[in-house]
Amino acid sequence: MDIAILIFDRITALDAVGPYEVLSRLPGARVTFVAAAPGQYRTENGMLALTADRAFGELPHPEVILIPGGFGTRALINDEPTLEWIREADKTTEFTTSVCTGSLLLGATGLLAGRQATTHWMVLEKLREFGAEPVSERIVEQGKLIMAAGVSAGIDMALLLAARIAGDEVAQAIQLGIEYDPQPPFNSGSTKTAPPAIVELVRARADQFA
Amino acid sequence: MDIAILIFDRITALDAVGPYEVLSRLPGARVTFVAAAPGQYRTENGMLALTADRAFGELPHPEVILIPGGFGTRALINDEPTLEWIREADKTTEFTTSVCTGSLLLGATGLLAGRQATTHWMVLEKLREFGAEPVSERIVEQGKLIMAAGVSAGIDMALLLAARIAGDEVAQAIQLGIEYDPQPPFNSGSTKTAPPAIVELVRARADQFA
Repeated sequence: MDIAILIFDRITALDAVGPYEVLSRLPGARVTFVAAAPGQYRTENGMLALTADRAFGELPHPEVILIPGGFGTRALINDEPTLEWIREADKTTEFTTSVCTGSLLLGATGLLAGRQATTHWMVLEKLREFGAEPVSERIVEQGKLIMAAGVSAGIDMALLLAARIAGDEVAQAIQLGIEYDPQPPFNSGSTKTAPPAIVELVRARADQFA
Repeated sequence: MDIAILIFDRITALDAVGPYEVLSRLPGARVTFVAAAPGQYRTENGMLALTADRAFGELPHPEVILIPGGFGTRALINDEPTLEWIREADKTTEFTTSVCTGSLLLGATGLLAGRQATTHWMVLEKLREFGAEPVSERIVEQGKLIMAAGVSAGIDMALLLAARIAGDEVAQAIQLGIEYDPQPPFNSGSTKTAPPAIVELVRARADQFA
């Protein structure tokens, strides 16, 4: 099974690498990082480069596509080659998925019109611009479309996707393999649980924290 | 503040990228991926390349070092340039940290002798070879040494480290920024919670799942 993860400049690395770590463990899975052109792409802060091994045209019909987020999605919303690769791939995928602001790219292709969708909490309302109904949930599943909320939600989404593809036992084995038994030292991962002052801090300094 | 993350062939990507996603958001932090030589290094399955921007000699005294794990640590346990960089850096670090089997490299430098330590659950007992006392906990803190259990535990550890460096509010803001509100679809992330058959499956097929 070919699983393609989109790579681009100003990507949020964990959006891509969290799901990669889960999906690459699926028996028979081949995860490929694809971009407009092969090469190294930097994260939004420039501190890390991920390599795309294949160009869009080299992998037009993977069984699964995953669209990560990051500030770079703002430019890609108007980038026709990227949108066209997503649209064409989606015609034959078993699953079309996104993490964080990756769902804005799905929206820009028209795929979210009339559907429920999710993204990073800070830009949730922006989904309406694409005719989608924003849902404040960590994972939103709409048929073969599966979307995760911000950044780290991609790990949870990928485990659900692993179960859909290979069954609950394989997904559980992967969860144990990556020892995903979360014990965050704070309960601040959602606007529903974070102290209001923290929510305001992140809103005011989104360039630093979000 | 300079935060150096070690990169090497056959690394587990999430061990490095989970903490990177947290620590790169610390105000004033500069995260640098370092290796024996700059260049691209592949994960254990070959599906992803991460780039190291600096060689050991270019960043001898960062304030924080983070040693990720992966099958590649087996070779590095006997690699003197790597061990020497860790040893030398540790002399002046504020925090010396590891994720997953990265702690075996800390062990190989001698830094864990007589200390409690943790690593991926499958190799926990191996810590004894370095004179350490294995502890089955997600995060083990021994003075300025902070170690995380397997793979995804690096995210929890990095949030704790962020709090130690910049205070609880900044760590909480980062947690909200990466929307780390884990909701795994199964409760299989620890040998204490996974069904026994799943634990056996992962042990029997460690090459696939671990």
